[in-house]
Amino acid sequence: MKISRRAREVQESPIRKLAGFANDAKGRGIHIYHLNIGQPDIPTPEPFYKSINDFSEKVLAYGPSDGLPELKQAMVDYFSNYNIGLKKEDIVVTVGGSEAISFAFAAIGDPGDEVIVPEPFYTNYNGFATFTGLKVVPVETVAETGFHLPGVAEIEAKITDRTRAIMICSPNNPTGTVFSEDEIRRLGALAKKHDLFLVADEVYKEFTYDGEKHFSILELEGMEDRVIVTDSISKRYSACGARIGAVISRNPEVMQMILKFAQARLCPATLDQVGAIGAYGMPMDYFKGIQREYQKRRDILCDMLTSNKDIVLRKPKGAFYIMAKIPVDDSDIFARWLLESFDFEGETVMVAPGAGFYSTPGKGRSEVRMAYVLETQKLEKAANIFLRGIEEYNSSS
Amino acid sequence: MKISRRAREVQESPIRKLAGFANDAKGRGIHIYHLNIGQPDIPTPEPFYKSINDFSEKVLAYGPSDGLPELKQAMVDYFSNYNIGLKKEDIVVTVGGSEAISFAFAAIGDPGDEVIVPEPFYTNYNGFATFTGLKVVPVETVAETGFHLPGVAEIEAKITDRTRAIMICSPNNPTGTVFSEDEIRRLGALAKKHDLFLVADEVYKEFTYDGEKHFSILELEGMEDRVIVTDSISKRYSACGARIGAVISRNPEVMQMILKFAQARLCPATLDQVGAIGAYGMPMDYFKGIQREYQKRRDILCDMLTSNKDIVLRKPKGAFYIMAKIPVDDSDIFARWLLESFDFEGETVMVAPGAGFYSTPGKGRSEVRMAYVLETQKLEKAANIFLRGIEEYNSSS
Repeated sequence: MKISRRAREVQESPIRKLAGFANDAKGRGIHIYHLNIGQPDIPTPEPFYKSINDFSEKVLAYGPSDGLPELKQAMVDYFSNYNIGLKKEDIVVTVGGSEAISFAFAAIGDPGDEVIVPEPFYTNYNGFATFTGLKVVPVETVAETGFHLPGVAEIEAKITDRTRAIMICSPNNPTGTVFSEDEIRRLGALAKKHDLFLVADEVYKEFTYDGEKHFSILELEGMEDRVIVTDSISKRYSACGARIGAVISRNPEVMQMILKFAQARLCPATLDQVGAIGAYGMPMDYFKGIQREYQKRRDILCDMLTSNKDIVLRKPKGAFYIMAKIPVDDSDIFARWLLESFDFEGETVMVAPGAGFYSTPGKGRSEVRMAYVLETQKLEKAANIFLRGIEEYNSSS
Repeated sequence: MKISRRAREVQESPIRKLAGFANDAKGRGIHIYHLNIGQPDIPTPEPFYKSINDFSEKVLAYGPSDGLPELKQAMVDYFSNYNIGLKKEDIVVTVGGSEAISFAFAAIGDPGDEVIVPEPFYTNYNGFATFTGLKVVPVETVAETGFHLPGVAEIEAKITDRTRAIMICSPNNPTGTVFSEDEIRRLGALAKKHDLFLVADEVYKEFTYDGEKHFSILELEGMEDRVIVTDSISKRYSACGARIGAVISRNPEVMQMILKFAQARLCPATLDQVGAIGAYGMPMDYFKGIQREYQKRRDILCDMLTSNKDIVLRKPKGAFYIMAKIPVDDSDIFARWLLESFDFEGETVMVAPGAGFYSTPGKGRSEVRMAYVLETQKLEKAANIFLRGIEEYNSSS
């Protein structure tokens, strides 16, 4: 009786592993500002809840494996606002963006196959890759260049005969970087040249600032068959607990395979899909207020942090994260110290240590990811406490 | 750019592949009795919906990866009614029984490893096995013995150095068979002898008839560390669309590994967990009326079908399925014929062809699975139409 190698190899969530220390701190009466997890504080829109409360079916039945047709149509309509033409057949509704990534990985690779991903990356890509037997091959990006992509040659050097796809996340978690149309087009050309899939996690599509526009890989012409997008309503409609996402591709063979995976797990939750239909029914200017709010928060956090000249941070254009290089040797220890041994007037902050977002051993140890998902007043306090924490940590050690 | 072998190898859902023919029949105005899918018609209990409608959090946030603590406690309490002692740590809430099976497979085996399963079996085990790279190794059971387990030697003969687990489903989908305490104990001893995990899908636990009691593998003494149960509220509380299940084991290492998979996909849907807490709050005698109703249905369907002496069927003691051997050569063709070319007074029936529940090629071709999930009057009509269908099919061919 042996636990599988796969299970042993799955990385423990670097975001969640500090949870015990956080609970201990709370037990001591310390208030914690949570900058460690991408849980927005924006209320879930009323139409989401209203649709669910209006649901009147006596039996909460299985829905279609590919999602409720009304929700798929709502998603098609949503994308048409961005001049992205999709058909319902190009979409399978998934259990959050998480399942969309799992399905995409399982469809494009067999155990031992490789997916090239710019590093740092959303840590759960590792989990899904291990689960499906794929190998994430990292390409280095660095704080000093705002985590933008390196030259094509550097990415091309990572391609082997086991490479099946290049995957990006834009706007990026954990860096907030929005890859430019030019960067995306270069990746597209590279995918085409080496006959690879191009996968993009675009769940932060609305979260762009300073007038920056998100360029979707679905906008690339002439390579529709190699493009797969993983999507979610978690951030878009502040409905993380709904677990509604989608995998999107115009390649009918890919979608047919993904439909088979979808059939095996029967369907996504029916009520949450009903809620999502309500949310997608809102006009697109719903996002404007949210963009303004997050841009304000980003400015506060970035401006305060860069008041410390030893923090390396280029103000990113999207998502609601920053990845900051800070003057500590090991941010795992520092993040734990913030919870265990530090407070300012009874309060402290929780951040996500950087190493967990890298698969290259030793990288990211002087970085932390911070999510600006708190209202501005709280965020200012949190940033202040964080800066004081760095000072005290460095003067005491 | 290649689709993965895994994706190509995933079996198309044999239950869902007739859907197109059913739609065509409906288009011609034919009414279809659906005996093909295990979607109960019992109303989802009021406390489920009420808990959801009472939910008043402004932000529908991520829950804990292992499930809401209140739901885990409700599950612990539920099992205590069966004198099965569990701790909250023994449970990870999953996205339906489906994800519970995926997690169990991923935790106990690596690509190429084998799981022994009595055949016929719930067809999606194949999907989850292919997804995780495992191989389902079937052990034959037959209609003539009510699909009970063969002797231990026959099962033992299937064990190789890649075997990681024996998996059963009891009460069984698709056969309705409830494995006896004695059968379960023999499996337990075999698992122990060969150092294997014993996995059981027990989602039909309440659905036992004629006073038959379900014996859970959680009741086996002295091998708590090798027992894994996959569970779900889909059938228990007629909430298939909620997608709430659980994986249960008293082996802390197994649960720690499964928690890592759970963390990668963040959490199950929050609102549906809230609904499940409401449902679990009902007294246990909720199940009595449901048992009576299903027992009545089972008797009607079995008694009517066995009026045809060419149908082989031993009245099963559980779940809400029967697997009947019928006098046709190829039930795939027959099931399609029922939809395409047959009706009785403008009505026909949809059944699940047997072959899809077997992994051994050629087996199950003269069997069909029927789910008695219709109220008695409709069920009588459906059975009558099915019997007429067999007669007409055999006289015309």
